[in-house]
Amino acid sequence: MSTKRLKRNDGNGQFTRNRVFEVAAEVFHRKGYDNTSMSDVATAAGLTKAGLYHHVTSKESLLYTILDYGLDLTESNVVKPLEEVSDPLGRLKTMIDLHLRLVLEERNLEVTGLLHECKTLSTADRTRINRRKKEYVRMTTTLIADVVKKYNVKDVNPKLAAFALLGMLNWTYQWYKASGSNSREEIVKNFQQIFLRGVLGDGRVDGTTQQPIFTAFDPELPDVK
Amino acid sequence: MSTKRLKRNDGNGQFTRNRVFEVAAEVFHRKGYDNTSMSDVATAAGLTKAGLYHHVTSKESLLYTILDYGLDLTESNVVKPLEEVSDPLGRLKTMIDLHLRLVLEERNLEVTGLLHECKTLSTADRTRINRRKKEYVRMTTTLIADVVKKYNVKDVNPKLAAFALLGMLNWTYQWYKASGSNSREEIVKNFQQIFLRGVLGDGRVDGTTQQPIFTAFDPELPDVK
Repeated sequence: MSTKRLKRNDGNGQFTRNRVFEVAAEVFHRKGYDNTSMSDVATAAGLTKAGLYHHVTSKESLLYTILDYGLDLTESNVVKPLEEVSDPLGRLKTMIDLHLRLVLEERNLEVTGLLHECKTLSTADRTRINRRKKEYVRMTTTLIADVVKKYNVKDVNPKLAAFALLGMLNWTYQWYKASGSNSREEIVKNFQQIFLRGVLGDGRVDGTTQQPIFTAFDPELPDVK
Repeated sequence: MSTKRLKRNDGNGQFTRNRVFEVAAEVFHRKGYDNTSMSDVATAAGLTKAGLYHHVTSKESLLYTILDYGLDLTESNVVKPLEEVSDPLGRLKTMIDLHLRLVLEERNLEVTGLLHECKTLSTADRTRINRRKKEYVRMTTTLIADVVKKYNVKDVNPKLAAFALLGMLNWTYQWYKASGSNSREEIVKNFQQIFLRGVLGDGRVDGTTQQPIFTAFDPELPDVK
Protein backbone atom coordinates (compact mmCIF):
# COMPACT_ATOMS: atom_id res chain seq x y z
CA MET A 1 0.00 0.00 0.00
CA SER A 2 1.18 3.52 -0.70
CA THR A 3 2.63 5.21 2.30
CA LYS A 4 2.14 8.72 1.03
CA ARG A 5 -0.30 10.95 2.85
CA LEU A 6 -3.79 9.98 1.90
CA LYS A 7 -5.62 12.15 -0.50
CA ARG A 8 -8.67 13.57 1.19
CA ASN A 9 -10.67 14.11 -1.94
CA ASP A 10 -9.95 13.74 -5.61
CA GLY A 11 -11.43 17.11 -6.44
CA ASN A 12 -14.61 15.72 -7.98
CA GLY A 13 -16.33 15.10 -4.68
CA GLN A 14 -15.53 11.41 -5.03
CA PHE A 15 -13.95 9.83 -2.03
CA THR A 16 -10.91 7.74 -2.63
CA ARG A 17 -10.46 4.27 -1.23
CA ASN A 18 -7.96 5.62 1.27
CA ARG A 19 -10.43 8.24 2.39
CA VAL A 20 -12.78 5.41 3.32
CA PHE A 21 -10.10 3.98 5.61
CA GLU A 22 -9.53 7.35 7.22
CA VAL A 23 -13.20 7.92 7.85
CA ALA A 24 -13.65 4.38 9.15
CA ALA A 25 -10.72 4.80 11.57
CA GLU A 26 -12.29 7.98 12.88
CA VAL A 27 -15.74 6.41 13.34
CA PHE A 28 -14.35 3.22 14.90
CA HIS A 29 -12.33 5.33 17.32
CA ARG A 30 -15.22 7.59 18.27
CA LYS A 31 -17.99 5.01 18.64
CA GLY A 32 -15.92 1.90 19.38
CA TYR A 33 -15.28 -0.72 16.72
CA ASP A 34 -18.14 -3.00 17.60
CA ASN A 35 -20.65 -0.24 18.06
CA THR A 36 -19.99 0.89 14.50
CA SER A 37 -21.99 -0.59 11.65
CA MET A 38 -21.05 -0.53 8.00
CA SER A 39 -23.97 1.86 7.56
CA ASP A 40 -22.31 4.26 10.02
CA VAL A 41 -19.09 4.15 8.01
CA ALA A 42 -20.97 4.63 4.73
CA THR A 43 -22.88 7.61 6.11
CA ALA A 44 -19.71 9.22 7.49
CA ALA A 45 -17.95 8.71 4.16
CA GLY A 46 -20.89 10.07 2.19
CA LEU A 47 -21.42 6.78 0.39
CA THR A 48 -24.32 4.40 0.04
CA LYS A 49 -23.84 1.05 1.72
CA ALA A 50 -23.46 -0.54 -1.73
CA GLY A 51 -20.90 2.13 -2.57
CA LEU A 52 -18.95 1.26 0.57
CA TYR A 53 -18.96 -2.45 -0.29
CA HIS A 54 -17.45 -1.50 -3.62
CA HIS A 55 -14.33 -0.52 -1.65
CA VAL A 56 -14.26 -3.15 1.10
CA THR A 57 -15.63 -6.64 1.47
CA SER A 58 -16.40 -6.59 5.21
CA LYS A 59 -16.01 -4.63 8.42
CA GLU A 60 -13.30 -7.01 9.54
CA SER A 61 -11.29 -6.45 6.35
CA LEU A 62 -11.72 -2.71 6.87
CA LEU A 63 -10.21 -3.00 10.36
CA TYR A 64 -7.38 -5.17 9.09
CA THR A 65 -6.56 -2.69 6.32
CA ILE A 66 -6.56 0.24 8.76
CA LEU A 67 -4.18 -1.52 11.16
CA ASP A 68 -1.95 -2.74 8.34
CA TYR A 69 -1.86 0.77 6.91
CA GLY A 70 -0.90 2.18 10.32
CA LEU A 71 2.01 -0.25 10.40
CA ASP A 72 2.97 0.73 6.83
CA LEU A 73 3.15 4.34 8.00
CA THR A 74 5.32 3.33 10.94
CA GLU A 75 7.62 1.49 8.57
CA SER A 76 7.98 4.41 6.17
CA ASN A 77 7.96 7.29 8.66
CA VAL A 78 9.94 5.81 11.54
CA VAL A 79 11.81 2.59 10.69
CA LYS A 80 13.21 3.59 7.29
CA PRO A 81 14.48 7.08 8.22
CA LEU A 82 16.21 5.61 11.29
CA GLU A 83 18.38 3.47 9.03
CA GLU A 84 20.08 6.71 7.98
CA VAL A 85 21.15 7.58 11.53
CA SER A 86 24.37 5.83 12.47
CA ASP A 87 24.95 7.02 16.04
CA PRO A 88 23.01 4.81 18.50
CA LEU A 89 21.98 7.64 20.82
CA GLY A 90 20.99 9.85 17.90
CA ARG A 91 18.95 6.97 16.49
CA LEU A 92 17.05 6.42 19.73
CA LYS A 93 16.40 10.12 20.20
CA THR A 94 15.20 10.39 16.61
CA MET A 95 12.93 7.37 17.03
CA ILE A 96 11.11 9.10 19.91
CA ASP A 97 10.66 12.19 17.76
CA LEU A 98 9.46 10.36 14.64
CA HIS A 99 7.19 7.95 16.50
CA LEU A 100 5.50 10.82 18.36
CA ARG A 101 5.32 12.91 15.20
CA LEU A 102 3.44 10.02 13.60
CA VAL A 103 1.09 9.00 16.40
CA LEU A 104 0.14 12.52 17.48
CA GLU A 105 -1.39 13.24 14.11
CA GLU A 106 -5.11 13.05 14.69
CA ARG A 107 -5.92 10.23 12.32
CA ASN A 108 -2.98 8.14 13.47
CA LEU A 109 -3.96 8.60 17.08
CA GLU A 110 -7.16 6.86 16.08
CA VAL A 111 -5.23 3.97 14.58
CA THR A 112 -3.16 3.54 17.75
CA GLY A 113 -6.39 3.42 19.69
CA LEU A 114 -7.56 0.56 17.49
CA LEU A 115 -4.50 -1.63 17.98
CA HIS A 116 -6.15 -3.54 20.81
CA GLU A 117 -9.02 -4.47 18.49
CA CYS A 118 -6.72 -7.08 17.00
CA LYS A 119 -8.60 -9.77 18.85
CA THR A 120 -11.63 -9.24 16.64
CA LEU A 121 -9.61 -10.10 13.51
CA SER A 122 -9.53 -13.54 11.92
CA THR A 123 -6.67 -15.71 13.13
CA ALA A 124 -4.67 -15.23 9.91
CA ASP A 125 -5.05 -11.45 9.91
CA ARG A 126 -4.33 -11.20 13.63
CA THR A 127 -1.18 -13.25 13.20
CA ARG A 128 0.04 -10.92 10.45
CA ILE A 129 -0.64 -7.76 12.44
CA ASN A 130 0.92 -9.21 15.59
CA ARG A 131 4.02 -10.23 13.65
CA ARG A 132 4.46 -6.66 12.43
CA LYS A 133 3.90 -5.24 15.92
CA LYS A 134 6.49 -7.64 17.32
CA GLU A 135 9.01 -6.61 14.66
CA TYR A 136 8.65 -3.04 15.83
CA VAL A 137 9.15 -4.01 19.46
CA ARG A 138 12.28 -5.90 18.39
CA MET A 139 13.60 -2.89 16.50
CA THR A 140 13.01 -0.66 19.52
CA THR A 141 14.76 -3.17 21.78
CA THR A 142 17.76 -3.21 19.44
CA LEU A 143 17.95 0.60 19.38
CA ILE A 144 18.07 0.64 23.17
CA ALA A 145 20.47 -2.32 23.37
CA ASP A 146 22.88 -0.44 21.08
CA VAL A 147 22.80 2.62 23.35
CA VAL A 148 23.13 0.55 26.49
CA LYS A 149 26.13 -1.24 24.98
CA LYS A 150 27.85 1.90 23.74
CA TYR A 151 27.52 3.66 27.10
CA ASN A 152 28.15 0.53 29.11
CA VAL A 153 24.88 0.76 31.06
CA LYS A 154 24.52 -2.21 33.38
CA ASP A 155 21.21 -1.66 35.09
CA VAL A 156 18.71 -1.41 32.23
CA ASN A 157 17.04 -4.38 30.51
CA PRO A 158 16.62 -3.25 26.86
CA LYS A 159 13.47 -5.29 26.27
CA LEU A 160 11.73 -3.89 29.34
CA ALA A 161 12.96 -0.41 28.49
CA ALA A 162 11.47 -0.86 24.99
CA PHE A 163 8.08 -1.73 26.49
CA ALA A 164 8.36 1.27 28.82
CA LEU A 165 9.11 3.55 25.89
CA LEU A 166 6.38 2.18 23.63
CA GLY A 167 3.94 2.59 26.52
CA MET A 168 4.92 6.24 26.95
CA LEU A 169 4.59 6.86 23.23
CA ASN A 170 1.44 4.89 22.43
CA TRP A 171 -0.56 5.80 25.54
CA THR A 172 -0.73 9.31 24.09
CA TYR A 173 -3.87 8.23 22.23
CA GLN A 174 -5.60 8.18 25.62
CA TRP A 175 -4.93 11.78 26.55
CA TYR A 176 -3.45 13.88 23.75
CA LYS A 177 -5.59 16.55 22.16
CA ALA A 178 -4.20 18.65 19.33
CA SER A 179 -6.12 21.57 20.83
CA GLY A 180 -4.63 20.97 24.29
CA SER A 181 -2.09 23.08 26.08
CA ASN A 182 0.98 20.96 25.24
CA SER A 183 2.58 21.26 21.86
CA ARG A 184 3.95 18.24 20.08
CA GLU A 185 7.42 19.75 20.42
CA GLU A 186 7.08 20.04 24.18
CA ILE A 187 5.93 16.45 24.45
CA VAL A 188 8.83 15.23 22.28
CA LYS A 189 11.33 17.20 24.34
CA ASN A 190 10.03 15.98 27.69
CA PHE A 191 9.73 12.36 26.59
CA GLN A 192 13.24 12.33 25.08
CA GLN A 193 14.59 13.94 28.24
CA ILE A 194 12.89 11.49 30.58
CA PHE A 195 13.60 8.37 28.60
CA LEU A 196 17.18 9.01 27.47
CA ARG A 197 18.27 10.33 30.83
CA GLY A 198 16.38 7.43 32.41
CA VAL A 199 18.36 4.90 30.42
CA LEU A 200 21.71 6.64 30.64
CA GLY A 201 21.73 9.02 33.56
CA ASP A 202 23.09 12.50 32.95
CA GLY A 203 26.42 11.92 34.61
CA ARG A 204 27.70 9.54 31.95
CA VAL A 205 30.18 10.65 29.40
CA ASP A 206 30.86 9.50 25.90
CA GLY A 207 34.10 7.55 26.02
CA THR A 208 35.29 9.23 22.85
CA THR A 209 34.54 12.85 23.52
CA GLN A 210 34.56 12.87 27.33
CA GLN A 211 31.68 15.30 27.04
CA PRO A 212 28.43 14.76 28.90
CA ILE A 213 26.26 13.00 26.35
CA PHE A 214 23.45 15.50 26.43
CA THR A 215 25.77 18.38 25.75
CA ALA A 216 27.53 16.41 23.06
CA PHE A 217 24.28 15.47 21.45
CA ASP A 218 21.99 18.49 21.86
CA PRO A 219 20.54 20.58 20.50
CA GLU A 220 20.47 19.31 16.92
CA LEU A 221 18.66 16.23 15.82
CA PRO A 222 20.29 14.23 13.08
CA ASP A 223 19.04 15.40 9.73
CA VAL A 224 16.19 13.04 9.01
CA LYS A 225 13.74 13.42 6.17
CA MET B 1 -17.32 -1.87 47.34
CA SER B 2 -15.07 -4.11 49.38
CA THR B 3 -11.47 -3.96 48.34
CA LYS B 4 -10.56 -7.31 49.77
CA ARG B 5 -9.56 -10.04 47.35
CA LEU B 6 -12.67 -11.39 45.78
CA LYS B 7 -13.90 -14.72 46.93
CA ARG B 8 -13.76 -17.18 44.09
CA ASN B 9 -16.44 -19.49 45.37
CA ASP B 10 -18.47 -19.68 48.52
CA GLY B 11 -17.92 -23.38 48.92
CA ASN B 12 -21.41 -24.41 47.84
CA GLY B 13 -20.71 -24.09 44.14
CA GLN B 14 -22.54 -20.77 44.14
CA PHE B 15 -20.68 -17.94 42.51
CA THR B 16 -20.63 -14.68 44.30
CA ARG B 17 -21.57 -11.39 42.72
CA ASN B 18 -17.91 -10.38 42.64
CA ARG B 19 -17.01 -13.59 40.91
CA VAL B 20 -19.40 -12.60 38.13
CA PHE B 21 -17.45 -9.36 37.66
CA GLU B 22 -14.17 -11.21 37.55
CA VAL B 23 -15.40 -13.71 35.01
CA ALA B 24 -16.97 -10.97 32.91
CA ALA B 25 -13.72 -8.96 32.91
CA GLU B 26 -11.86 -12.03 31.72
CA VAL B 27 -14.35 -12.80 28.94
CA PHE B 28 -14.60 -9.14 27.81
CA HIS B 29 -10.82 -8.97 27.69
CA ARG B 30 -10.42 -12.22 25.76
CA LYS B 31 -13.21 -11.80 23.20
CA GLY B 32 -13.53 -8.02 23.14
CA TYR B 33 -16.37 -6.26 24.95
CA ASP B 34 -18.73 -6.02 22.02
CA ASN B 35 -18.12 -9.53 20.82
CA THR B 36 -19.21 -10.82 24.20
CA SER B 37 -22.86 -11.59 24.82
CA MET B 38 -24.51 -11.91 28.20
CA SER B 39 -24.91 -15.60 27.33
CA ASP B 40 -21.11 -15.85 27.02
CA VAL B 41 -20.68 -14.33 30.46
CA ALA B 42 -23.35 -16.58 31.95
CA THR B 43 -21.74 -19.69 30.45
CA ALA B 44 -18.28 -18.69 31.66
CA ALA B 45 -19.64 -18.04 35.15
CA GLY B 46 -21.57 -21.30 35.20
CA LEU B 47 -24.90 -19.54 35.52
CA THR B 48 -28.07 -19.53 33.48
CA LYS B 49 -28.81 -16.28 31.70
CA ALA B 50 -31.63 -15.65 34.19
CA GLY B 51 -29.17 -16.36 36.99
CA LEU B 52 -26.78 -13.78 35.57
CA TYR B 53 -29.53 -11.15 35.36
CA HIS B 54 -30.15 -11.77 39.03
CA HIS B 55 -26.71 -10.16 39.62
CA VAL B 56 -26.63 -7.47 36.94
CA THR B 57 -29.23 -5.53 35.01
CA SER B 58 -27.36 -5.15 31.70
CA LYS B 59 -24.05 -5.67 29.94
CA GLU B 60 -23.36 -1.95 30.14
CA SER B 61 -23.90 -1.93 33.93
CA LEU B 62 -21.56 -4.92 34.15
CA LEU B 63 -18.83 -2.98 32.32
CA TYR B 64 -19.40 0.09 34.49
CA THR B 65 -19.14 -1.98 37.67
CA ILE B 66 -15.92 -3.64 36.49
CA LEU B 67 -14.28 -0.31 35.68
CA ASP B 68 -15.52 1.29 38.87
CA TYR B 69 -14.24 -1.66 40.86
CA GLY B 70 -10.82 -1.35 39.14
CA LEU B 71 -10.69 2.26 40.26
CA ASP B 72 -11.74 1.25 43.80
CA LEU B 73 -8.79 -1.12 43.86
CA THR B 74 -6.47 1.65 42.68
CA GLU B 75 -7.77 3.88 45.43
CA SER B 76 -7.28 1.30 48.18
CA ASN B 77 -4.06 -0.33 46.94
CA VAL B 78 -2.18 2.68 45.58
CA VAL B 79 -3.62 6.06 46.58
CA LYS B 80 -4.31 5.34 50.25
CA PRO B 81 -0.98 3.65 51.10
CA LEU B 82 0.89 6.55 49.46
CA GLU B 83 -0.61 8.95 51.99
CA GLU B 84 1.60 7.24 54.59
CA VAL B 85 4.83 8.06 52.71
CA SER B 86 6.05 11.54 53.51
CA ASP B 87 9.21 11.83 51.40
CA PRO B 88 8.32 12.95 47.83
CA LEU B 89 10.87 10.71 46.10
CA GLY B 90 9.92 7.72 48.25
CA ARG B 91 6.27 8.39 47.45
CA LEU B 92 6.86 8.42 43.69
CA LYS B 93 9.03 5.32 43.82
CA THR B 94 6.39 3.54 45.91
CA MET B 95 3.63 4.59 43.52
CA ILE B 96 5.43 2.85 40.63
CA ASP B 97 5.77 -0.28 42.72
CA LEU B 98 2.18 -0.34 43.95
CA HIS B 99 0.63 0.58 40.62
CA LEU B 100 2.56 -2.20 38.86
CA ARG B 101 1.84 -4.65 41.65
CA LEU B 102 -1.85 -3.95 41.08
CA VAL B 103 -2.03 -3.92 37.28
CA LEU B 104 0.22 -6.92 36.72
CA GLU B 105 -2.16 -9.19 38.55
CA GLU B 106 -3.89 -11.14 35.86
CA ARG B 107 -7.44 -10.05 36.48
CA ASN B 108 -6.46 -6.41 36.90
CA LEU B 109 -4.54 -6.50 33.65
CA GLU B 110 -7.87 -7.32 32.09
CA VAL B 111 -9.51 -4.32 33.71
CA THR B 112 -6.76 -1.99 32.45
CA GLY B 113 -7.38 -3.39 28.99
CA LEU B 114 -11.03 -2.44 29.29
CA LEU B 115 -10.43 1.20 30.25
CA HIS B 116 -10.76 2.33 26.64
CA GLU B 117 -14.23 0.79 26.45
CA CYS B 118 -15.47 3.82 28.38
CA LYS B 119 -16.96 5.19 25.22
CA THR B 120 -19.58 2.45 25.20
CA LEU B 121 -20.91 3.56 28.60
CA SER B 122 -23.87 5.85 29.07
CA THR B 123 -22.94 9.51 29.35
CA ALA B 124 -23.52 9.60 33.11
CA ASP B 125 -21.46 6.49 33.77
CA ARG B 126 -18.69 7.59 31.40
CA THR B 127 -18.51 10.94 33.16
CA ARG B 128 -18.11 9.25 36.53
CA ILE B 129 -15.38 6.90 35.34
CA ASN B 130 -13.55 9.69 33.53
CA ARG B 131 -13.68 11.87 36.63
CA ARG B 132 -12.04 9.12 38.67
CA LYS B 133 -9.38 8.53 36.01
CA LYS B 134 -8.62 12.25 35.93
CA GLU B 135 -8.25 12.34 39.71
CA TYR B 136 -5.61 9.67 39.43
CA VAL B 137 -3.73 11.59 36.73
CA ARG B 138 -3.86 14.64 38.99
CA MET B 139 -2.48 12.70 41.93
CA THR B 140 0.36 11.35 39.78
CA THR B 141 1.12 14.86 38.52
CA THR B 142 1.28 16.12 42.10
CA LEU B 143 3.63 13.31 43.14
CA ILE B 144 5.99 14.27 40.33
CA ALA B 145 5.62 18.00 40.91
CA ASP B 146 6.65 17.48 44.55
CA VAL B 147 9.80 15.63 43.48
CA VAL B 148 10.62 18.18 40.79
CA LYS B 149 10.21 20.97 43.33
CA LYS B 150 12.28 19.31 46.04
CA TYR B 151 15.17 18.56 43.68
CA ASN B 152 14.83 21.82 41.79
CA VAL B 153 14.41 20.14 38.40
CA LYS B 154 13.80 22.75 35.72
CA ASP B 155 13.40 20.75 32.54
CA VAL B 156 10.53 18.36 33.28
CA ASN B 157 6.84 19.21 32.91
CA PRO B 158 5.12 17.25 35.71
CA LYS B 159 1.85 16.77 33.79
CA LEU B 160 3.62 15.38 30.73
CA ALA B 161 5.85 13.25 32.94
CA ALA B 162 2.70 11.87 34.61
CA PHE B 163 1.27 10.86 31.24
CA ALA B 164 4.63 9.29 30.32
CA LEU B 165 4.64 7.30 33.56
CA LEU B 166 1.01 6.17 33.32
CA GLY B 167 1.70 5.08 29.74
CA MET B 168 4.67 2.99 30.86
CA LEU B 169 2.63 1.44 33.65
CA ASN B 170 -0.69 0.85 31.92
CA TRP B 171 0.65 -0.30 28.55
CA THR B 172 1.80 -3.42 30.40
CA TYR B 173 -1.63 -4.93 29.69
CA GLN B 174 -0.54 -5.12 26.03
CA TRP B 175 2.54 -7.24 26.58
CA TYR B 176 2.90 -8.63 30.09
CA LYS B 177 2.43 -12.34 30.66
CA ALA B 178 2.72 -13.78 34.14
CA SER B 179 4.34 -16.82 32.53
CA GLY B 180 6.85 -14.64 30.64
CA SER B 181 10.54 -14.31 31.30
CA ASN B 182 10.40 -11.04 33.27
CA SER B 183 9.39 -11.10 36.90
CA ARG B 184 7.25 -8.38 38.36
CA GLU B 185 10.18 -7.38 40.55
CA GLU B 186 12.44 -6.93 37.53
CA ILE B 187 9.83 -4.80 35.78
CA VAL B 188 9.34 -2.65 38.89
CA LYS B 189 13.08 -2.16 39.28
CA ASN B 190 13.65 -1.22 35.64
CA PHE B 191 10.67 1.12 35.46
CA GLN B 192 11.60 2.88 38.71
CA GLN B 193 15.17 3.23 37.48
CA ILE B 194 14.21 4.63 34.09
CA PHE B 195 11.53 6.97 35.30
CA LEU B 196 13.13 8.35 38.46
CA ARG B 197 16.53 8.80 36.85
CA GLY B 198 14.74 10.26 33.83
CA VAL B 199 13.06 12.90 35.94
CA LEU B 200 16.00 13.63 38.21
CA GLY B 201 19.20 12.54 36.54
CA ASP B 202 21.62 10.52 38.63
CA GLY B 203 24.06 13.35 39.21
CA ARG B 204 21.77 15.32 41.46
CA VAL B 205 22.23 15.36 45.16
CA ASP B 206 19.81 15.78 47.98
CA GLY B 207 20.39 19.25 49.41
CA THR B 208 20.19 17.92 52.92
CA THR B 209 22.40 14.89 52.80
CA GLN B 210 24.65 15.75 49.87
CA GLN B 211 24.40 12.11 48.92
CA PRO B 212 23.45 11.01 45.43
CA ILE B 213 19.70 10.47 45.68
CA PHE B 214 19.73 6.88 44.53
CA THR B 215 22.32 5.91 47.09
CA ALA B 216 20.48 7.83 49.77
CA PHE B 217 17.21 6.24 48.84
CA ASP B 218 18.03 2.66 47.87
CA PRO B 219 17.70 -0.14 48.57
CA GLU B 220 14.79 0.03 50.98
CA LEU B 221 11.31 1.01 50.01
CA PRO B 222 9.33 2.88 52.63
CA ASP B 223 7.36 0.49 54.72
CA VAL B 224 4.00 0.36 53.01
CA LYS B 225 1.26 -2.08 53.88
